Amino acid sequence: MSPTPVTYASPTEPASYTWEATNEEVAARYGIPLADIVRFDLNTSPTPPVLVSRLLAAGRFETPLSEYPPSDYRRLVAAAAGRYGVGTDEVLVGAGADEILDIIGKVFLPAGGTAIIPTPSYSMYRVITEQRAARAIAVPRLEATDGYAMDVPAIRAAASAGAGPAQVVWLCSPNNPTALPEPDGAVEALLTALAGDAAAAGREPPVVVLDEAYAEFTGRSLVELRHRYSNLIVVRTISKAYALAGMRVGFALARPETIARLNPVRPPGSVSTVSVTIATEALLDPTLAANNVARVRRERDRLRGALIGLGWRVGRSATNFLLVDLGSPEGAAVVAEGLLSRGLVPRTFPAGHPLADHLRLTVRDAEGNQQLISAAREMSKEKP
Amino acid sequence: MSPTPVTYASPTEPASYTWEATNEEVAARYGIPLADIVRFDLNTSPTPPVLVSRLLAAGRFETPLSEYPPSDYRRLVAAAAGRYGVGTDEVLVGAGADEILDIIGKVFLPAGGTAIIPTPSYSMYRVITEQRAARAIAVPRLEATDGYAMDVPAIRAAASAGAGPAQVVWLCSPNNPTALPEPDGAVEALLTALAGDAAAAGREPPVVVLDEAYAEFTGRSLVELRHRYSNLIVVRTISKAYALAGMRVGFALARPETIARLNPVRPPGSVSTVSVTIATEALLDPTLAANNVARVRRERDRLRGALIGLGWRVGRSATNFLLVDLGSPEGAAVVAEGLLSRGLVPRTFPAGHPLADHLRLTVRDAEGNQQLISAAREMSKEKP
Repeated sequence: MSPTPVTYASPTEPASYTWEATNEEVAARYGIPLADIVRFDLNTSPTPPVLVSRLLAAGRFETPLSEYPPSDYRRLVAAAAGRYGVGTDEVLVGAGADEILDIIGKVFLPAGGTAIIPTPSYSMYRVITEQRAARAIAVPRLEATDGYAMDVPAIRAAASAGAGPAQVVWLCSPNNPTALPEPDGAVEALLTALAGDAAAAGREPPVVVLDEAYAEFTGRSLVELRHRYSNLIVVRTISKAYALAGMRVGFALARPETIARLNPVRPPGSVSTVSVTIATEALLDPTLAANNVARVRRERDRLRGALIGLGWRVGRSATNFLLVDLGSPEGAAVVAEGLLSRGLVPRTFPAGHPLADHLRLTVRDAEGNQQLISAAREMSKEKP
Repeated sequence: MSPTPVTYASPTEPASYTWEATNEEVAARYGIPLADIVRFDLNTSPTPPVLVSRLLAAGRFETPLSEYPPSDYRRLVAAAAGRYGVGTDEVLVGAGADEILDIIGKVFLPAGGTAIIPTPSYSMYRVITEQRAARAIAVPRLEATDGYAMDVPAIRAAASAGAGPAQVVWLCSPNNPTALPEPDGAVEALLTALAGDAAAAGREPPVVVLDEAYAEFTGRSLVELRHRYSNLIVVRTISKAYALAGMRVGFALARPETIARLNPVRPPGSVSTVSVTIATEALLDPTLAANNVARVRRERDRLRGALIGLGWRVGRSATNFLLVDLGSPEGAAVVAEGLLSRGLVPRTFPAGHPLADHLRLTVRDAEGNQQLISAAREMSKEKP
């Protein structure tokens, strides 16, 4: 048996996003009906909120669909400001969090600049950095036993040393793919240290991007820190807790003077009018995200318990996904192939990745999770 | 009377997009009910196609809206390839033509590079260029009597001279805001000349971007030229002839090897799933765009005739908008203010723009156009 990777990389430099195989590609490769494919690799929520079909059928949007979206996304900005507890001048709208990252790169990362990435983390940070012809410095995270926390002294050293001081630090908390938030006080400690180092050297501190894509699953956000640190940009999305990844809506939250630097680079209307309306109503709904988060957490704990019961080493999770330690890259590849042959698509990590011996598995609905548990049970019986 | 501009510029360098005032802003400034505002400044089509409400109500999309859009946009790419007469490996999908321009900039324009823009043209070409920290060289277009054609020898000279050879030439045909296509053979003559100059100098020719956003209104496309010129990238959109600006879907069409250079920089899913489905069905509909184009052309010719009958100097148009010569920037400002005070929003050009003495007016539906004609009639009676 010779498992082949199921993610497809573009053979180019600088780094480009590695697209996940489509359902069609997985179905064709494994001879499985398309309808039987279940994605455990994308960290999405199981079903879209019920308000979506009502809004689509009503067909009433901000502006007619023959016109461009409203250039200021006014109602959406107001809804996001209310939901996230910031001012309307502290919100920037993007076509998913990915476009927010791109806009930040365009404003703060010059060609030849430097960005720091506590690693492993979301792959787009390196992609965005290298697309700016800037240098991505990977600073290894601590061990699993330390919750994969970022290494504050090492980040601080990397931000001051080398070819020049860093312009951007890309943080993600809770972190993808390690599933845990930074320890209490760690982000603030880093912000304080970076500010001190920069002041001592007579320069501006780097922008600290804090990607909180999974924050709703912890019930906590560090957006309040923006009051003391205007170099902090918090990134939020409706793709995870709001179960609306298909709409492509994300946000930057930061001090007004920081949003004012990002805003001129924002494309004039990258978010579709349908997405603007649906995202607005989803954010205004007081219980939509909370209900989904509660459902996902229950399923997460059930799924984790069942997999541990089968002998799998499954880390703690503050998110909607689980990180499973298979002991070796070969072990991870065998389990990945076993899942794929049943139409269940895990997230794998390529050779050389710090988590090459792990798989990442999204929490799905009860039925999907049960399929995963059954597959794991079958595979454990197949073992020599 | 002291007219103030109604477009809002961000006070920043590099150039940023100048957002049009929202309906709310115009309504508030002129004390007009929001429902009475008619936009003549955005070059959109009057009403969205009827298939939209049916598709939205059916609620069946490529993937559930809780999932990311299909990473390869497979059905949309196939529909676009069929519609535009190219191969599926000759199509790149973007969140509107604007994202296509951005992707081209990221791949082909290095920091310190050079791009050439026959001017006046669509403002985003300069914005994208300067966001890459590249230099935008404006090469003036010929006079109105020459159809505002690009100046091929001047472009050719600019592309070879200066600080270094240009990497990108941004063309738009039919051109916004001058409403006319390049003369027959001009684009090919430019491609041939640039190829010859580059070969003589032992370097690659610049990428020639041909923005055909308004091509359906002429019934002609130059996409066939890609067979002989792999440095040609044609840009298409569903915002104009398909009357779907609110969906944010655009395309690059080019030789497979050129698409392969753009593809790694494409964001993993910037187009919403709803937009993917609607755009796919709109492109598959054999008569949707043609019917809208026929309607708009009839209204365009009627509107132009009526305005000329009132003494306005209205240029020929191969698009869905008219360019009106008001004789002086002051004259243009007075007419703009007269229209705005009636809730009719024209596109103005700032001081120093080559068309500062012109207004650009989108062709709307019969009712909207009649409002414009009535306003013009009233204003002509008010003249001293």
